[in-house]
Amino acid sequence: MNFDVDFSVPFRHRVRFTSDLAGREFETLTDLVVGDSPPLPPKVLLVVDQGLSDNQHVKKLVRRLDGCNVLSLLDGRDFSVAANDADDNGQAKTSPAFFIMGGEICKNDSDDVEQILAWVNRFELDRRSYIIAIGGGALLDCVGFAAATAHRGIRLIRIPTTTLAQADSGVGVKNAINYFNKKNWLGTFAVPWAVVNDASLLSTLSERDFTCGFSEAIKVALLKSKRDFRDLCKAADRIRQRDPEASFDAIQRSCRSHLAHITAGGDPFEMLEARPLDFGHWSAHKLESLTEYRLRHGEAVAMGVLLDCIYSSRVHGLPRETVAQVLQFFRDLGLPLWHEALTDDSILQGLEEFRQHLGGRLTVTMLEDVERPINVHEIDRQQMQASIQQLCGLQDARQFK
Amino acid sequence: MNFDVDFSVPFRHRVRFTSDLAGREFETLTDLVVGDSPPLPPKVLLVVDQGLSDNQHVKKLVRRLDGCNVLSLLDGRDFSVAANDADDNGQAKTSPAFFIMGGEICKNDSDDVEQILAWVNRFELDRRSYIIAIGGGALLDCVGFAAATAHRGIRLIRIPTTTLAQADSGVGVKNAINYFNKKNWLGTFAVPWAVVNDASLLSTLSERDFTCGFSEAIKVALLKSKRDFRDLCKAADRIRQRDPEASFDAIQRSCRSHLAHITAGGDPFEMLEARPLDFGHWSAHKLESLTEYRLRHGEAVAMGVLLDCIYSSRVHGLPRETVAQVLQFFRDLGLPLWHEALTDDSILQGLEEFRQHLGGRLTVTMLEDVERPINVHEIDRQQMQASIQQLCGLQDARQFK
Repeated sequence: MNFDVDFSVPFRHRVRFTSDLAGREFETLTDLVVGDSPPLPPKVLLVVDQGLSDNQHVKKLVRRLDGCNVLSLLDGRDFSVAANDADDNGQAKTSPAFFIMGGEICKNDSDDVEQILAWVNRFELDRRSYIIAIGGGALLDCVGFAAATAHRGIRLIRIPTTTLAQADSGVGVKNAINYFNKKNWLGTFAVPWAVVNDASLLSTLSERDFTCGFSEAIKVALLKSKRDFRDLCKAADRIRQRDPEASFDAIQRSCRSHLAHITAGGDPFEMLEARPLDFGHWSAHKLESLTEYRLRHGEAVAMGVLLDCIYSSRVHGLPRETVAQVLQFFRDLGLPLWHEALTDDSILQGLEEFRQHLGGRLTVTMLEDVERPINVHEIDRQQMQASIQQLCGLQDARQFK
Repeated sequence: MNFDVDFSVPFRHRVRFTSDLAGREFETLTDLVVGDSPPLPPKVLLVVDQGLSDNQHVKKLVRRLDGCNVLSLLDGRDFSVAANDADDNGQAKTSPAFFIMGGEICKNDSDDVEQILAWVNRFELDRRSYIIAIGGGALLDCVGFAAATAHRGIRLIRIPTTTLAQADSGVGVKNAINYFNKKNWLGTFAVPWAVVNDASLLSTLSERDFTCGFSEAIKVALLKSKRDFRDLCKAADRIRQRDPEASFDAIQRSCRSHLAHITAGGDPFEMLEARPLDFGHWSAHKLESLTEYRLRHGEAVAMGVLLDCIYSSRVHGLPRETVAQVLQFFRDLGLPLWHEALTDDSILQGLEEFRQHLGGRLTVTMLEDVERPINVHEIDRQQMQASIQQLCGLQDARQFK
């Protein structure tokens, strides 16, 4: 006797855009910390990227959140004292902030995940408690995996602090750490309770980190919106100058496109074989590992997107003019578009590693035009080699015109 | 700027009932191993409860599945040799079976989960591969957690081998291991690819393990179906005699009720505060830990269900006749209904531990009648103490008439 039962699990995805979260828009954050079991106040655990310990906005935010001086936390005060302070007002009970080192290092073993689990246990957080994670994509991934598995899921509020995480991964429904030396090998699909993209938190990013995040924005525009693609290309100069309006608009559009893909694309937990948002990523992942992560993810994605645009123009009819626009966009941002790792013989192995990561047969997204992605199951190796050589040899944008 | 986006994630739950899975119904299993990426055959990893290594049906099933002699596997043959055999026919490529010790022990630390992850990595399973887990509820939980987190989710086919797991947890959408010495502290919600309940696999269960699984069946009948409750009470004698038809019918109805609750109840991943399927479980969990798991889960549930029925009759109007029927059902099955742990002063602490496990305020399901569960947020301690004393003192079913 057989039963096949189709059913759906409902989720709510909350995204907030602010420009002064630590100041006048602070309530945007506290409004998200719903105490749905009065009179018990919800508990809140703060996990912050150590690299942001000097960021004034982050300091102010943490200070306001935990109601005690973040400077003394940074000086090594015993956090447990403050955390055990009773709160008689029925307000959210926030533990002090805990700092872990962000960047790929926090994903490379399970130590940081275990540390976060230990904090969850020590402060007796439960499924109606909150973890607020403030940091870049890697930290959000690491905290997210802990939050998703403790008590089968504690509410996670992500506050991404890089352009890359704000425009792209922060709004995603995935988390992972590296395992067996393999990128994102261990993780879950989990919808965050909320994501707060605050513009002021980007102020201390280096130029390199600020600009490279927009490679994910141009990627999603190429896949989803001619209008966004056109406007983004126009805005590149202003983004490079960190014009707040242009940058914020680009991040917001990218974030919305990602969100729409996840929530309306029909396959949020990636059970089907196509992963269109991974356009350009097969080579990007390989470039990251070949350079031992000296290339930023955003920089590798820029090269990977440009490479697959060149290939798409050679094989799938993507207009050469579009490739030229993409190239010009990256140049306007000042991104590096060449790395010696591109000439490594093993670069094409990235295709097989990409297949293994997704499982099943190879499925790579290419472009027939802007807004017209296609899934291909075979890559013409000769044409791809020629595309790599073209990428390596290009001197300016005109050759695509 | 704020976006709240509601969306749903679609799942399919597949449940199969068989009585000769290792024999003439073998295709029921192989039909579930869909190769959706031709020409690549899907990989299959088998993880089997060591305690079943002498079960003829399991041996036959494993032998048919991995295409090599399970006896030699049990004798410690190097599995990797067989696993690396190429399969030129495009058939599912099954690794040999791996055995882990079932029972609560496999959930008590993360060693077994890490072992399973290592197998997944060694045989290069991906998200379109399958793990077939054959065993009781604890083993399915442990394998399920590994399957849910490797590559963010490998397809899991559960083959439960106890009445408890067939009637209840096997069809669930949860997994967990114990962590920080706390039951089910670490885990995820994850929909299995399929569940196959095969009657023949129950043949070697001890009488104790066979009968106690039906405490979950009576629990779900009390919550969901007057008809199932009535029929189950009538069938108790035949179930105790292991009459195949009566047992299988009871398991199937219980399984269907659980499945309906999960797939049509509106809250499969338990994001709301009520967990009606946990009727009777606050004390059951406490009894298990007080007895250091010497009480079986099904036995503890029987006591917990009876206790909350008594309390419901004292406080919420559940007819005394119904309590008498529940008592008679457990007696007909021959289940123990008293343990000295019931007299432990700490038993009521189970309520607070139950609250902590779910998070938020205390929410316990009680019964106004069969099919009429209610959620209560306070328990009258005096009445509960009196109910415990009544449970401890009862000599026969007549006092409830």
